[in-house]
Amino acid sequence: MEELARDYHSPDVTDREIAIFELGIKLAALFHLVFGAPIKNDEETKKSIAEGIKASIECQPFVKSVKVEITDLKEGMSHHYTKSNEYDYTYVSGKNLQAEVEIVYRNWKAVGRVQWMSDLNYPMMFIKSITQL
Amino acid sequence: MEELARDYHSPDVTDREIAIFELGIKLAALFHLVFGAPIKNDEETKKSIAEGIKASIECQPFVKSVKVEITDLKEGMSHHYTKSNEYDYTYVSGKNLQAEVEIVYRNWKAVGRVQWMSDLNYPMMFIKSITQL
Amino acid sequence: MEELARDYHSPDVTDREIAIFELGIKLAALFHLVFGAPIKNDEETKKSIAEGIKASIECQPFVKSVKVEITDLKEGMSHHYTKSNEYDYTYVSGKNLQAEVEIVYRNWKAVGRVQWMSDLNYPMMFIKSITQL
Amino acid sequence: MEELARDYHSPDVTDREIAIFELGIKLAALFHLVFGAPIKNDEETKKSIAEGIKASIECQPFVKSVKVEITDLKEGMSHHYTKSNEYDYTYVSGKNLQAEVEIVYRNWKAVGRVQWMSDLNYPMMFIKSITQL
Repeated sequence: MEELARDYHSPDVTDREIAIFELGIKLAALFHLVFGAPIKNDEETKKSIAEGIKASIECQPFVKSVKVEITDLKEGMSHHYTKSNEYDYTYVSGKNLQAEVEIVYRNWKAVGRVQWMSDLNYPMMFIKSITQL
Repeated sequence: MEELARDYHSPDVTDREIAIFELGIKLAALFHLVFGAPIKNDEETKKSIAEGIKASIECQPFVKSVKVEITDLKEGMSHHYTKSNEYDYTYVSGKNLQAEVEIVYRNWKAVGRVQWMSDLNYPMMFIKSITQL
Repeated sequence: MEELARDYHSPDVTDREIAIFELGIKLAALFHLVFGAPIKNDEETKKSIAEGIKASIECQPFVKSVKVEITDLKEGMSHHYTKSNEYDYTYVSGKNLQAEVEIVYRNWKAVGRVQWMSDLNYPMMFIKSITQL
Repeated sequence: MEELARDYHSPDVTDREIAIFELGIKLAALFHLVFGAPIKNDEETKKSIAEGIKASIECQPFVKSVKVEITDLKEGMSHHYTKSNEYDYTYVSGKNLQAEVEIVYRNWKAVGRVQWMSDLNYPMMFIKSITQL
């Protein structure tokens, strides 16, 4: 079936490039699937949500492994997101989500990350490495 | 802060009705947040995803408890969603998601469910019980 | 089919309460479906996205009408979200989304809103009115 | 700022590969953002939703153009998704969504699509072309 799937791509693209394309797909799928999930600054809550999205993305084609970490988020002095009252929680966003995905497509391994870059004010997705197996 | 929030509602509505309103909000939030998450027919994967969404929804206002179950899904003889090949998986949908949410708002407890109803071909959300504490 | 759906609810609940329950469902569905959509501070872009989510939610049961407005969002002096560079945009969130939904269930009309409340630091969903037709 | 962003990638990757990576990101973002949106088989509804997601994805970095089409979906004789009753509608999924995205990163143009492939039972994302400008 991988052979079949290969046929849909332009013949101009290499296996290495398909590995990189699949990496982009998975980082964006991970980000947009978990983005907006309610969350509080509590270790067990953050761990459960991180493990749920990891298990989900690991179902997708060519995914070898996924790491997800949700970091604490504070905005100013007044928001601790610790459920000190019913409305005191936040959500998973580019600012508190860090993830790494490893793709293997044929004999290429592509590793990429999404993480918040303060200088860009942006949750940057980037290719960390691409290596031949 | 609950007092403050109460003021936004029409004065016509009762606490019992607000409990029911909050129940509707949480069932829909749960459904739409996890809908579309990739999934395969493997117990550990389904459990991780179910626990992640449970942990997330339990952060929301007035949520007392959440139960989530993801059931197996087969369509025809050829689709088993067991990762027999890279493309053989499915996603969380109205057909394989069952959840129950318990809300406590002031002295009212509202319990509701979402589950697939074959007669309606629809993932029905409904109020299971509303009781005074 | 509405008759059939009625049977799933606890016999304790009234038609008025089901209208309120359905209102909660729709406000949360709307919010979570459009939350996280990329957006820039440009009238046409915001209007297209608002109309898309309106058209979608109007497909759901008992929805009579939907109004959606996406307001401008600025954070500090340096972020204008006007695509002054490739990374200068933001996303639909509780802070820039306002919506109103009108439900008719049998002879009850329920109207509710979601809008940002600075005092709660929260996108509050509330019942604006409930009236008998 | 594009210069700054370039620095996050492994020095091993070329501009052509970054264009392909960005293409993967955008196809997946588009797919996961609109997936699950309620929809009925009505031209105006489908057009509004398609235009909303197009406007949203066009805000993202390096996106030159986006085309989105939502096709009709029927399952068996009894489901027409025309709102013949309150529950008779469906949602945007891999089966009824077709989209094409064009990325320009520096002097490379990458075009890709997502569309349903019956032979794979899968909404395939693929690279249609990659050309130097």
